[in-house]
Amino acid sequence: MYSDKSPLQIRQMIRRGEFQGNTSGVAAGFVQGNLVILPKDYAGDFLQFCQLNPKPCPLIGMSERPGRFMLPSLGEDLNICTDIPKYRVYRDGELIKELPDVSALWRDDLVTFVLGCSFSFEEALLADGLEIRNISEGVNVPMYRTNIPCKPAGCFSGDTVVSMRPMKAADVIRAIQICSRFPSVHGAPLHLGDPTEIGIEDIDKPDFGDAVTIKEGELPVFWACGVTPQVAIEQAKPSFCITHSPGHMIVTDLANSRLAIF
Amino acid sequence: MYSDKSPLQIRQMIRRGEFQGNTSGVAAGFVQGNLVILPKDYAGDFLQFCQLNPKPCPLIGMSERPGRFMLPSLGEDLNICTDIPKYRVYRDGELIKELPDVSALWRDDLVTFVLGCSFSFEEALLADGLEIRNISEGVNVPMYRTNIPCKPAGCFSGDTVVSMRPMKAADVIRAIQICSRFPSVHGAPLHLGDPTEIGIEDIDKPDFGDAVTIKEGELPVFWACGVTPQVAIEQAKPSFCITHSPGHMIVTDLANSRLAIF
Repeated sequence: MYSDKSPLQIRQMIRRGEFQGNTSGVAAGFVQGNLVILPKDYAGDFLQFCQLNPKPCPLIGMSERPGRFMLPSLGEDLNICTDIPKYRVYRDGELIKELPDVSALWRDDLVTFVLGCSFSFEEALLADGLEIRNISEGVNVPMYRTNIPCKPAGCFSGDTVVSMRPMKAADVIRAIQICSRFPSVHGAPLHLGDPTEIGIEDIDKPDFGDAVTIKEGELPVFWACGVTPQVAIEQAKPSFCITHSPGHMIVTDLANSRLAIF
Repeated sequence: MYSDKSPLQIRQMIRRGEFQGNTSGVAAGFVQGNLVILPKDYAGDFLQFCQLNPKPCPLIGMSERPGRFMLPSLGEDLNICTDIPKYRVYRDGELIKELPDVSALWRDDLVTFVLGCSFSFEEALLADGLEIRNISEGVNVPMYRTNIPCKPAGCFSGDTVVSMRPMKAADVIRAIQICSRFPSVHGAPLHLGDPTEIGIEDIDKPDFGDAVTIKEGELPVFWACGVTPQVAIEQAKPSFCITHSPGHMIVTDLANSRLAIF
C-alpha cells in the first residue's frame, strides 16, 4: 500500500510518526536518496569528494545554503530534519544515537547532501524483467569493502564499497545497458566476475548487508555503493554529522525516469 | 596509407584491380559491410531471416529492386559486381570459386543484401583506448558455432556464430556501453564468461578465424557474428549465391559515427 502513496504523503506520514520502517518500495517510481549532513567547515571538502567520486557518491541535491533544512529542489515541503524515518547522529566519527527527528540538533552551519541510491536502478532492472536476488530473497543487498581507492578530497578518503547482485551473463549485459542510463544512481557496474580482483576475499561474507545465493552459471556483478561516503566520513571523523539509517531514505519528488540520460 | 583513402577511392582501386587484399583498416571511419547476393526466389525469406535475427544479421542496405547492381544508398558510383576485392560464388550451397569481379555472372533476378560488420565497433572500441586482442596479435578474430538458435525464416535457419574478444572486467563493461550504441553492427555482446554455457567446448579451437591469447583475469566476450548468415546459407543450399570472401568487404560511404543511436 505504501508503494501507491505520493512522495509528499510518505514524507508527511514520516513527519507525523505514522511511518517508521525502511523505505524500500514506498512511493514507487520516485527517487530515494542517501543523506549526509555536515558542518560548513567540512562541506567544501565533502562536495569535492562527491565531485571526484561520482559513481559511489552521485550528488542529486544539496541545501541552498548552510542552515537551510527545507530542500524545495528535491520535494514539496521537504524538511530534512523530520522527513526521514530514522537518522544516525555522529560526533567525532562515533555513532552516538539513532533518532526519528533531528530538529532539536539543528544548527545554522549545517549543510545537507542527498546522494542517489540503488533503489532507483533496481526498479529499472525489475521493470525490465531481471531478477534482483536480494529482493527475491528478502534480505539487504550484500556490500563489500574493495581495494579500489576513492580520489581523496581534504579529510575525506577511503576505498570504494560495492554492492553485489548475481546474474546470468545475458542479464549482466542487459543490466549494464540499463544502469548506464542512470549515472546519478551509481551508473554502470564497476566490476563483474572474480571478486578477488577488487580485493574481496570471501563473497559469502559481506562487510555490510546480507549474503545472497549465487547460482551455477551466474556472475557476481558489483556496483559502486552509497556506503562509500559513510566509510569516508567514519575515517574523517568530523566533529558532527547526521546521516540516514541504512534503508531509511529521503523520498524525493523526482521521478526515477527523469534520471535517465537517454 | 589505405586508411586515409576515401571509400570511393578504395572502391575505384578495387574495380581497377589495384587493390586486392582484405579491407581491414582501409578508409578509416567508414562502414564496411558483409555481402549476400541471392536470387529473388530466396530474397524474401532471407530478408525475413535478417529481420528476425538482427544481432547476427544487421541489414544496413539492399538493392532497390532485383537486378540492380548499383547501390547508391550505400555509396557514390557503388557497383556491387566490381567493388569488392574477392567474391565467393556458390551453387546449390557449394563454394565453387573465388573471383575478383562477378559482372559476368550477373542476372536480372539477383537481390543484394549488405550487413553490418564488426570492423565498425572495433574502431569505436580502439578509439576509446580498449585493446582488441585479434588486432594486437595480427590475426583473424576467433569465431565459434554456438547452441543459440536463430529464428528460422523459410529455408534459412541455423545456430548463431559468435566472435570472441577477451577483456578485463572493467573493459568488458565499457565495451558493452560502446557497442550498445551500434545496433546495426551487431550491437552489445550476446554472452560473456563461461563458453560452455553457449555450447563452445574448447575456446582454444575456434570454428573460424584464429585463436587468441586470453590473459589471466580476462573474460571472453562474445558478439553475434556475420558468419551466421553464411552458415544459414550453406544449410539452405540456394541454387545460386554470391558473398564476399572473409575480410574482403564492401566499403561504403556511411560514416561509422552515423551508426551510433545515441
